[in-house]
Amino acid sequence: MDRLSEKYKELDRRVRREVLAEEVIQPDLLLTFPYEAAVPDVDIRIETEEFTAVCPWTGLPDFGRLVVEYVPKERCVELKSLKYYLHSFRSVGIVQERAAKRILDDLVRLTQPVRMKVTLDYNVRGGLHTVVTATYPVSSPCHGSDQRD
Amino acid sequence: MDRLSEKYKELDRRVRREVLAEEVIQPDLLLTFPYEAAVPDVDIRIETEEFTAVCPWTGLPDFGRLVVEYVPKERCVELKSLKYYLHSFRSVGIVQERAAKRILDDLVRLTQPVRMKVTLDYNVRGGLHTVVTATYPVSSPCHGSDQRD
Amino acid sequence: MDRLSEKYKELDRRVRREVLAEEVIQPDLLLTFPYEAAVPDVDIRIETEEFTAVCPWTGLPDFGRLVVEYVPKERCVELKSLKYYLHSFRSVGIVQERAAKRILDDLVRLTQPVRMKVTLDYNVRGGLHTVVTATYPVSSPCHGSDQRD
Amino acid sequence: MDRLSEKYKELDRRVRREVLAEEVIQPDLLLTFPYEAAVPDVDIRIETEEFTAVCPWTGLPDFGRLVVEYVPKERCVELKSLKYYLHSFRSVGIVQERAAKRILDDLVRLTQPVRMKVTLDYNVRGGLHTVVTATYPVSSPCHGSDQRD
Amino acid sequence: MDRLSEKYKELDRRVRREVLAEEVIQPDLLLTFPYEAAVPDVDIRIETEEFTAVCPWTGLPDFGRLVVEYVPKERCVELKSLKYYLHSFRSVGIVQERAAKRILDDLVRLTQPVRMKVTLDYNVRGGLHTVVTATYPVSSPCHGSDQRD
Amino acid sequence: MDRLSEKYKELDRRVRREVLAEEVIQPDLLLTFPYEAAVPDVDIRIETEEFTAVCPWTGLPDFGRLVVEYVPKERCVELKSLKYYLHSFRSVGIVQERAAKRILDDLVRLTQPVRMKVTLDYNVRGGLHTVVTATYPVSSPCHGSDQRD
Amino acid sequence: MDRLSEKYKELDRRVRREVLAEEVIQPDLLLTFPYEAAVPDVDIRIETEEFTAVCPWTGLPDFGRLVVEYVPKERCVELKSLKYYLHSFRSVGIVQERAAKRILDDLVRLTQPVRMKVTLDYNVRGGLHTVVTATYPVSSPCHGSDQRD
Amino acid sequence: MDRLSEKYKELDRRVRREVLAEEVIQPDLLLTFPYEAAVPDVDIRIETEEFTAVCPWTGLPDFGRLVVEYVPKERCVELKSLKYYLHSFRSVGIVQERAAKRILDDLVRLTQPVRMKVTLDYNVRGGLHTVVTATYPVSSPCHGSDQRD
Amino acid sequence: MDRLSEKYKELDRRVRREVLAEEVIQPDLLLTFPYEAAVPDVDIRIETEEFTAVCPWTGLPDFGRLVVEYVPKERCVELKSLKYYLHSFRSVGIVQERAAKRILDDLVRLTQPVRMKVTLDYNVRGGLHTVVTATYPVSSPCHGSDQRD
Amino acid sequence: MDRLSEKYKELDRRVRREVLAEEVIQPDLLLTFPYEAAVPDVDIRIETEEFTAVCPWTGLPDFGRLVVEYVPKERCVELKSLKYYLHSFRSVGIVQERAAKRILDDLVRLTQPVRMKVTLDYNVRGGLHTVVTATYPVSSPCHGSDQRD
Repeated sequence: MDRLSEKYKELDRRVRREVLAEEVIQPDLLLTFPYEAAVPDVDIRIETEEFTAVCPWTGLPDFGRLVVEYVPKERCVELKSLKYYLHSFRSVGIVQERAAKRILDDLVRLTQPVRMKVTLDYNVRGGLHTVVTATYPVSSPCHGSDQRD
Repeated sequence: MDRLSEKYKELDRRVRREVLAEEVIQPDLLLTFPYEAAVPDVDIRIETEEFTAVCPWTGLPDFGRLVVEYVPKERCVELKSLKYYLHSFRSVGIVQERAAKRILDDLVRLTQPVRMKVTLDYNVRGGLHTVVTATYPVSSPCHGSDQRD
Repeated sequence: MDRLSEKYKELDRRVRREVLAEEVIQPDLLLTFPYEAAVPDVDIRIETEEFTAVCPWTGLPDFGRLVVEYVPKERCVELKSLKYYLHSFRSVGIVQERAAKRILDDLVRLTQPVRMKVTLDYNVRGGLHTVVTATYPVSSPCHGSDQRD
Repeated sequence: MDRLSEKYKELDRRVRREVLAEEVIQPDLLLTFPYEAAVPDVDIRIETEEFTAVCPWTGLPDFGRLVVEYVPKERCVELKSLKYYLHSFRSVGIVQERAAKRILDDLVRLTQPVRMKVTLDYNVRGGLHTVVTATYPVSSPCHGSDQRD
Repeated sequence: MDRLSEKYKELDRRVRREVLAEEVIQPDLLLTFPYEAAVPDVDIRIETEEFTAVCPWTGLPDFGRLVVEYVPKERCVELKSLKYYLHSFRSVGIVQERAAKRILDDLVRLTQPVRMKVTLDYNVRGGLHTVVTATYPVSSPCHGSDQRD
Repeated sequence: MDRLSEKYKELDRRVRREVLAEEVIQPDLLLTFPYEAAVPDVDIRIETEEFTAVCPWTGLPDFGRLVVEYVPKERCVELKSLKYYLHSFRSVGIVQERAAKRILDDLVRLTQPVRMKVTLDYNVRGGLHTVVTATYPVSSPCHGSDQRD
Repeated sequence: MDRLSEKYKELDRRVRREVLAEEVIQPDLLLTFPYEAAVPDVDIRIETEEFTAVCPWTGLPDFGRLVVEYVPKERCVELKSLKYYLHSFRSVGIVQERAAKRILDDLVRLTQPVRMKVTLDYNVRGGLHTVVTATYPVSSPCHGSDQRD
Repeated sequence: MDRLSEKYKELDRRVRREVLAEEVIQPDLLLTFPYEAAVPDVDIRIETEEFTAVCPWTGLPDFGRLVVEYVPKERCVELKSLKYYLHSFRSVGIVQERAAKRILDDLVRLTQPVRMKVTLDYNVRGGLHTVVTATYPVSSPCHGSDQRD
Repeated sequence: MDRLSEKYKELDRRVRREVLAEEVIQPDLLLTFPYEAAVPDVDIRIETEEFTAVCPWTGLPDFGRLVVEYVPKERCVELKSLKYYLHSFRSVGIVQERAAKRILDDLVRLTQPVRMKVTLDYNVRGGLHTVVTATYPVSSPCHGSDQRD
Repeated sequence: MDRLSEKYKELDRRVRREVLAEEVIQPDLLLTFPYEAAVPDVDIRIETEEFTAVCPWTGLPDFGRLVVEYVPKERCVELKSLKYYLHSFRSVGIVQERAAKRILDDLVRLTQPVRMKVTLDYNVRGGLHTVVTATYPVSSPCHGSDQRD
């Protein structure tokens, strides 16, 4: 048993970890194409089961499901470029809350949508299953803003 | 391996592709039958798992689920003619956002409904699953139009 | 192949079809029992997977799921009589939209409910799955009546 | 065949039926425990798949799922006593609509909740699946009371 | 209550029932097409959710799911003709065990398959859900024939 | 709290329990109808979600799912009589293992089947979910009888 | 049988029970990390299937699913510390309603969120399945506070 | 009504149909890559929801799920080339039984596998759901070849 | 960040852990009741979602599903005593493989069954989901014992 | 459109790809612990949804589910070390068939099990869903080895 916990420490030393900073995220990979509607009349939902990034503390990978929902104003997100953009998180050390916000911010800046929601649903870790949802613009008054102090 | 990537290029050359322009879509196939209610009191939902069109860039087919939901005013869509109309997309090169809008526009023009929603849910491509929803008329103010800038 | 399509025509001639007019529907089979609440405080939902009628054009049977949801005022629908009433559609040639409305009308006339909704969900035909929902009274203003022109 | 229908009648004579009156329902078995919140801040949902009573007309048992949902004010329902109370319906001849209301009435009287909903979902009989929902207090105006005539 | 049971009897008198004899089943509607394999190398499975016949005792309809699984020898069942053949059971009074056997017998006579299995799965009646499976030829010795006495 | 445990004891005294002996089970209610096949070629499966009996120790009801699967030799179980027979367990105090065996024994004696299996699947009690399966005749040698000592 | 109930009592005496008071719950284990958004724009949902505590009356364990949903203001709950905090309930004797409230109170005090909801969904006991939901702040007026008397 | 059936005929005339002969199927698109195991030790399963071909009688498209399962001997099927090969069925008029066999034959000829199974599962047509399974080599004696006459 | 990892270490120090040795497992709590069949004719399956023990290395709890399947010879496991026995693992430090074997051994010694299988299915840890199955007696030759060296 | 395909090429140039050779796989990370059974009596199943490697041709990541099932002889795989070993595939360019075999080979060499099966189930790519299963030792004669030539 003692030997095993010694071996554990050795494991931790020998495992190859690659934890890159947020700077390697590549929002400049993102492309758009024009969407010419006079009024916001289309909802778009993009989902992937293949989001992965790295835990900034342990250097081990996290896996999860990402959902982007938005109403475009003048531009739509091009899918292949979105895939490549998400791929640029693969070795980045970033916590879940931050990753959801970062993706929302990058996509809002790019497409200036009427509204957008990013949901990041991570696999179970330590028996806990966590989902983070970031929205733009923040919820309208009728849904609870009167609850702020 | 090099040989394989060469063979890939050859594949791309040899595969039979048929990418027709949007003009071959046949909205004139669509039939209606009268619906005589004094007030809008019926909701109709039509779903098919068998929508297919062609990617305008690769010439390869896309597959998806199409849902049409509407409240008729004076005319309903005849189902067999709808099936034939959708069949006319089979060799058309068209992106998902455009296809959803085109179907909505054709059906709204035909039936002048109280309201209608067209959802086009495409199979996974490159790990991404995309759903586009087009609505007529655009969402009422209470659902977020005040969120536009 | 030619022989088969000839045989098909023969099939169409020989199959026993019974397409009766709407007059054989028996709303007079329906029974009610009194419900004495001072205010509308009960919701009732009745569902059957066993609705069947006949296509008025082909004479072949349609099958579907029927859901009746209502808030009674003074009378409830008796279940066995409802079953017999629905059974009276078995050989009637009637389209789905009409059948949903007819059932709603018969049940509203009988029970004078606070509100009622009839959903008729037909099995797939020609790759299309269709659901018709009829409601009484028509949707309240907040749910879209302002969308009428 | 004739013999079988004769035997059926004999079956009906010989089956042991026990149909008791509503008086044997034991609301006095119900216990509560105090809930001391200043404002209504807890929702409680209790569900059992094991409700059974007897059809008052045939003497044969009905089975179903019961859900009690409520916001307590000053007292909560004690679970074991609820189980015993529900057990007291086991031989009572009572229709589904009446049973849902009776349980709601007994529990409201006992606990004086902020609000409560009782859903009684009976197994399929004669191809019909029926669900009755009783609520206290009756739905607020925004959900349709203006639809009353 | 007494009035209701009287009304029930009246219902039973007034409901339109059509119970035809097995003679109206139309096996002659069934068509085949040749299957030319040298050895039995194809399994075919046909399923429909839309089988209906009539209870010979009550005259009320039964509904169910039918599955035909077979290995063809020289002929396959043509699907449209199968649909019409099954349609000919619509008003026939026949018990479930007999219906499964009759369909097996008709299809075996027609196609002389290597083997065939017919499963008839009826909707719940009186709280009981019943499935009958008939097979041709009877199970091989290894699956239990040595268990016969 | 002490008061609650006192009240619990009182509950246990006051709850109406009816625990009858196995003698009230009514196998004589069971009917059969002839099945004339020369060889065992039909499998029958009957399932009900509505089995209930009473725990012989606590007097409280147990609920469960019952499945009867058999290959008939000369007689089939009539369904309505089976329902009435199972109903006769409603107030009987009997453990799950014994109930499964009793039903098997009664049905085997009645129908003399080629083989039969009775599965009794009780709802969770104390966090444990238990299923008992009784078979006739006992499993053939190939399935483990050589494992007996 | 008598012997068994004697043995039962003996079981109850011999089983090792550890029922600790609420004081051993360790809210001081909880850590937070800063969340710097100007407006509440993120929803967080944490779920675990592994909550366990002890029934204060029987000393036997309860098991359940816990969901924490919240909108952070300035601080988020750190997951590993949450796991350890929940672990501190393992031997505590506490009822379900109290546990849900306690967790809500501890987390609200710690993070001062915009809003938070704690749902505690216990496994079936005695055939009853119970879910308790505690919310902060209490529901807004539009969802029923006008229903209070 | 009469007008509608006239319009139907017109529809049938006007719908664009493209029914090509089997010659346009392109087995020469298929590529393999070497698999060097000494003994057959790998099972491969490839599934697509996107198979489509054309009904040879009506010229309308069929849709379905295709599964290829095999144990390779010396060569594996390359996936992209398989996708292009299947794409070459898109306008071919071919019945389901024939399509399954054709795919099996082409893949067996190409890869000379230890064994292979092709399952073609077509969407519901006329209420019937049909699955065809073709296998190479034909089932071994133990699974029923002794059942041939 | 550094502060957080320091706090983590502090967490690890402060969390209350109770890791008992296997000696506190209480097989003597287990009771049986006689089962008198002449031949092994009953299969019993007991499942609980509520197994918990402690990881011997981290002192943190593991959770899982336990299934016991057996054919009794002369004695059955009494359920309440089984529950208490399993409860005695609650604070024991034991790995999953050992726990499965220990439960099998204790139950085989107690009941001397014809055969028994214990499956222990632990919740996901570190992204890995692990199931251990122990059987008595070891698998018969036909299922692979010839594969031993 | 032309601009978009130009941009695509640019995307392909700019995306960060890391395709390492198989040499970076770290089987030396794998640990075992002794398993002392006299006969093979335990089955172990380990499943993860989090396998990822890189396509050797495109440099883009593949994602999938991995299942390892085995009967240990003298040693078991330690889970944390397995997780680290699988993590070492994260940047390796390897095809699915090869990855399944490599994992099997590494684990068999390490643990010398009685038998082992590795299933690698990759997410959909190009509409195709592929599963590879590698087994040790190769299937016994009864399951098809007589089908080899």
